[in-house]
Amino acid sequence: MNAPQVGDAFGEMIKDAYAVRTGIGPRPLAGGRIPRPVIEIIERDDGLINGAPADHYLGEPAEWQPHDHRALRLVRGAVLDIGAGAGRTALELQRRGAAVTGLDISRGAIEVARKRGLRDTVLATVDEYAARAEARYDTFLLLGNNLGLLESRDRAPVLLDALATLANPGARIIGHGTDPYRTTDPVHLAYHQLNRERGRLGGQLRLRIRYRLLASAWFDYLVCSVDELVSLLDGTPWRLARIDDTDHPYYLAVLELRRERGRPGR
Amino acid sequence: MNAPQVGDAFGEMIKDAYAVRTGIGPRPLAGGRIPRPVIEIIERDDGLINGAPADHYLGEPAEWQPHDHRALRLVRGAVLDIGAGAGRTALELQRRGAAVTGLDISRGAIEVARKRGLRDTVLATVDEYAARAEARYDTFLLLGNNLGLLESRDRAPVLLDALATLANPGARIIGHGTDPYRTTDPVHLAYHQLNRERGRLGGQLRLRIRYRLLASAWFDYLVCSVDELVSLLDGTPWRLARIDDTDHPYYLAVLELRRERGRPGR
Repeated sequence: MNAPQVGDAFGEMIKDAYAVRTGIGPRPLAGGRIPRPVIEIIERDDGLINGAPADHYLGEPAEWQPHDHRALRLVRGAVLDIGAGAGRTALELQRRGAAVTGLDISRGAIEVARKRGLRDTVLATVDEYAARAEARYDTFLLLGNNLGLLESRDRAPVLLDALATLANPGARIIGHGTDPYRTTDPVHLAYHQLNRERGRLGGQLRLRIRYRLLASAWFDYLVCSVDELVSLLDGTPWRLARIDDTDHPYYLAVLELRRERGRPGR
Repeated sequence: MNAPQVGDAFGEMIKDAYAVRTGIGPRPLAGGRIPRPVIEIIERDDGLINGAPADHYLGEPAEWQPHDHRALRLVRGAVLDIGAGAGRTALELQRRGAAVTGLDISRGAIEVARKRGLRDTVLATVDEYAARAEARYDTFLLLGNNLGLLESRDRAPVLLDALATLANPGARIIGHGTDPYRTTDPVHLAYHQLNRERGRLGGQLRLRIRYRLLASAWFDYLVCSVDELVSLLDGTPWRLARIDDTDHPYYLAVLELRRERGRPGR
């Protein structure tokens, strides 16, 4: 069989999901006639594959989970929405009059976010943006499970340092995560064990997204418990200020810039 | 990455779809809590991957497409439902008092069909069943696009001969197919071309089903035009009696046993 081509699988998926939702433009059809629901397909490196409808990436506030609304109540000042996707959250903040920048590495996702009206977008990784941006932010959003972008024990402090570079004094990170260990599914328990055996955090998923002929590159996505999150913050400019685990195993974490930042020797 | 394990991917998917629909038994959860819609994932040998909700395999008659209802109006006598899956069609025929046998190669699908109340089931290929069965049938159903089970130019006459072995005089095949050539999707057009270059029919799909850690073996599934279907019948005991293409590109074909069958030299 042909291997899938590496490309912007997420972006192509978002573009089709947008076409299906709005009825604008070409979209995948079944039998050349019936619009097909757009499905996000995620492969894990143990061979697990899962599909889920992609339409939630375009959800209006009335369709959101309650934790998304609670997250937005914690926002203040200038906002950088990281992994902004189709702009679901950033568009709502913009509607409310906030200064918000939507950042994503997916060209297709940024294209859709702009079509939907998001004015300030960045097509870059956080590292790339931190190296060049002059803008500074008061709030960083890692919603939609995007605490996963911490990736790994090694990568988390690098990302957190980059965010500190972009931060105004008193800035906060509002992140959404999932405790991976509240499952009894033997497939996931075996994967956690495999991960530990190879020196990874239990919920350090190795994933790729597939859409039609495209696959993303493989990437790490960290699903970590609150305890693991706290240990990852050790030695970084950020400290845990608050956890909201009303919807456990999902949680919202608020991280705040440590006051002693940049004052070594204190 | 680990290759998926070859196994009854379709059956495991049907079992989970049944658990989600009925609320009975363990089922896949997102975040260990929220039931996940069950998605059928199909890979094609050009690298194309598609997902679609699996729940339609369990659809009650009120949820069916109109062509399924029209197909059942063509049924008479003893029925063999080929690729019966979760028993969607066979259960309705049984409710109506028909003598119906549901045949499938998926152990999991047959298990669900029996749980749902289907009394007469066969876990076998058509060839295996034709070699041993004493039962004879008046109607063979290949619904849900299952004219695809004709597979290829070489395989179609073998399957059609096996069905003739199982047939009473005057028997018919009611098959549901799709004309693959009524698409403008460049991904599909390129695949048709690739197929022709390697000596296959344009719509002779090479597929496998994936579900969680499992993949089916790769198999051919023939999406053919009505003209191609007619040419495949040449030299077989079956002739095309009727086409219903109200829902084109989908069509229902009725094939009938030729009268001169078994009388060579006429």
